[in-house]
Amino acid sequence: MSAPRPVSLDEIESLATGAWILGTGGGGSPYLALLNMRRLYQEDQKTVSLLDPMALGDDDLVAVVSNMGAPLVGQERLTDPRNIAHAVRLMEEYAGRPFVAVMSLEIGGGNAIQPFMAAALLDLPVVDADTMGRAYPEAQMTSFAVHDLRMYPLTLVDVRDNAVIVARAASWKWMERLSRRACVEVGSIASTCKAPRTGKEVKECGILYTTTKAIRLGEAVRAARRAHRDPVQAVIEAEAGQLLFTGKVKDVARRTTEGFLRGTAAIDGLDAFKGHELSLAFQNEFAVGWLDGAPRVMTPDLICVLDSVSGEAVGTETLRYGQRVSVVALPGPAVFRTPKGLEHVGPRAFGYDLEFISVFD
Amino acid sequence: MSAPRPVSLDEIESLATGAWILGTGGGGSPYLALLNMRRLYQEDQKTVSLLDPMALGDDDLVAVVSNMGAPLVGQERLTDPRNIAHAVRLMEEYAGRPFVAVMSLEIGGGNAIQPFMAAALLDLPVVDADTMGRAYPEAQMTSFAVHDLRMYPLTLVDVRDNAVIVARAASWKWMERLSRRACVEVGSIASTCKAPRTGKEVKECGILYTTTKAIRLGEAVRAARRAHRDPVQAVIEAEAGQLLFTGKVKDVARRTTEGFLRGTAAIDGLDAFKGHELSLAFQNEFAVGWLDGAPRVMTPDLICVLDSVSGEAVGTETLRYGQRVSVVALPGPAVFRTPKGLEHVGPRAFGYDLEFISVFD
Repeated sequence: MSAPRPVSLDEIESLATGAWILGTGGGGSPYLALLNMRRLYQEDQKTVSLLDPMALGDDDLVAVVSNMGAPLVGQERLTDPRNIAHAVRLMEEYAGRPFVAVMSLEIGGGNAIQPFMAAALLDLPVVDADTMGRAYPEAQMTSFAVHDLRMYPLTLVDVRDNAVIVARAASWKWMERLSRRACVEVGSIASTCKAPRTGKEVKECGILYTTTKAIRLGEAVRAARRAHRDPVQAVIEAEAGQLLFTGKVKDVARRTTEGFLRGTAAIDGLDAFKGHELSLAFQNEFAVGWLDGAPRVMTPDLICVLDSVSGEAVGTETLRYGQRVSVVALPGPAVFRTPKGLEHVGPRAFGYDLEFISVFD
Repeated sequence: MSAPRPVSLDEIESLATGAWILGTGGGGSPYLALLNMRRLYQEDQKTVSLLDPMALGDDDLVAVVSNMGAPLVGQERLTDPRNIAHAVRLMEEYAGRPFVAVMSLEIGGGNAIQPFMAAALLDLPVVDADTMGRAYPEAQMTSFAVHDLRMYPLTLVDVRDNAVIVARAASWKWMERLSRRACVEVGSIASTCKAPRTGKEVKECGILYTTTKAIRLGEAVRAARRAHRDPVQAVIEAEAGQLLFTGKVKDVARRTTEGFLRGTAAIDGLDAFKGHELSLAFQNEFAVGWLDGAPRVMTPDLICVLDSVSGEAVGTETLRYGQRVSVVALPGPAVFRTPKGLEHVGPRAFGYDLEFISVFD
């Protein structure tokens, strides 16, 4: 059994870059969370450790955290590490048992760093795993849900002094509805601690080593930038991805509704794609892409929109007219490509009547 | 210190009649709750006892319960005593301390009987008190709120297997918003257990002996019916009320929105009121009445709409064209007539820019 290993601030910088790419447009920009981590490391002398999930005891209890809401709101209401720590403490109180570690609900976007903020304040390690291998907008879109684990309780806290516990939910969809409503009411952004998981559950039903994967992906991009190589190509090589399109954003329609950021974006082709158009639909994350009107890529394949020059991910909340972007597909976790997985996160789960076809098949 | 006294089924029949009058149109029809009590008494051999609030020890813990939501929905989703008992049990688990008694949040309408249903299943007495002396639509419209008692936690359960705990709220208004949202999401009706209260809090900040008052009022009406006397007159005499209007309902506009039943009703005068019109505005309960366009009666005075023949209360959800009704004002609890009380439940708290004038001044 391996001991937790300390994570350097430079690795967290890479994590921010890599997680933002895996966020497929969502999970919230990691930037503000990264600023918090810099302060926690530099001013408060904190160092967070990363724990191999296989080192968890079967009965150890793990806190699964995420910032929930509409990414656009996260640009306005700044991230405070105390909120996510508060959600974990409230769950610990409610569960009546201490947590041994913290873990990401989703490794995509700022939610990759939320457990690091909580861990720094609570003096716990972060488990090298998540439940999405990316970001997804809804509660039932996790490997834990696909494995039919219990979905409650959930704690939700806001920046005021409000705290809600969903003590029981009749289904994963009910958990989503009840927690989303509370989230919308407090301003479409809230810190949440999901149902506590045992070490056994994490090991058997989690998506493992995704923190390391995100760090590695970020390092590849940052190394390419330093060496003046193409960072988009570095992403493709690091994750066995596929370039789908390069072009210029020509239109974005976006609305914050029901606790989500929903909309569409149209991209005019450049270079090899001149004369073609890619259109993307998103609910927090990019869900489906159409090339010249025909379905080209869809969830659970990861649809990553990257700045063509820097390789930096572009979020659904920051996408805007004139941006030069490259659209890359990365393979999704195997758990979501099963028939049960596709029920949870396939195109129909997002309202698109499409049979899932992977760009990697 | 007096022991709890058993309440007969006949008294509960009177309670249903009296509480429905004190409901001022809301609190939910007591009819389905009464049917449940008949079964609990007759088939399950239950007898519920009533406890003098002054018999509570200062540190005793009391469960304050209510069915929350839009009265109209309560006509469609039938009352099951297990739901309110479930809300109490969940609170007991969460608080980690046993309750010694159950109490009404509001003595108006079906919510007068909710604690009896919970008490029958949990084998606890009912405290002879409430926090409104009537029914009101929102969380902050209670004597406990006027006394600035702590507003959390609250448990809320539905007919499925959903349960939400509002663990903390930044204010009474936030408690109202958070619990209302959860209530709306589960179908605009839910069973709730409010913040647990100590015996000291109940004795000092409750509205005492309102269960007995509602029973007495119901008995007066039933006695008048049996003796072929005027039941409306019996209400006025029993509670030192005032007849405001008699007439025929000529129009009702009603909508179930944001977890409330809102609307207006217009009544054409008959007999002494011929040629006049009374219009009433309601949010679950009747809030303000205008006679020929001028304010005539307003909360916290109780505005009771009664069937002119039977003296039976008419709820905002059952008011309809053609009904012959008498509108009676009854005096409201003193706690709501203070400046602080009026902030919570005066006409401005319902959005009407009127200075409170009591019909009893």
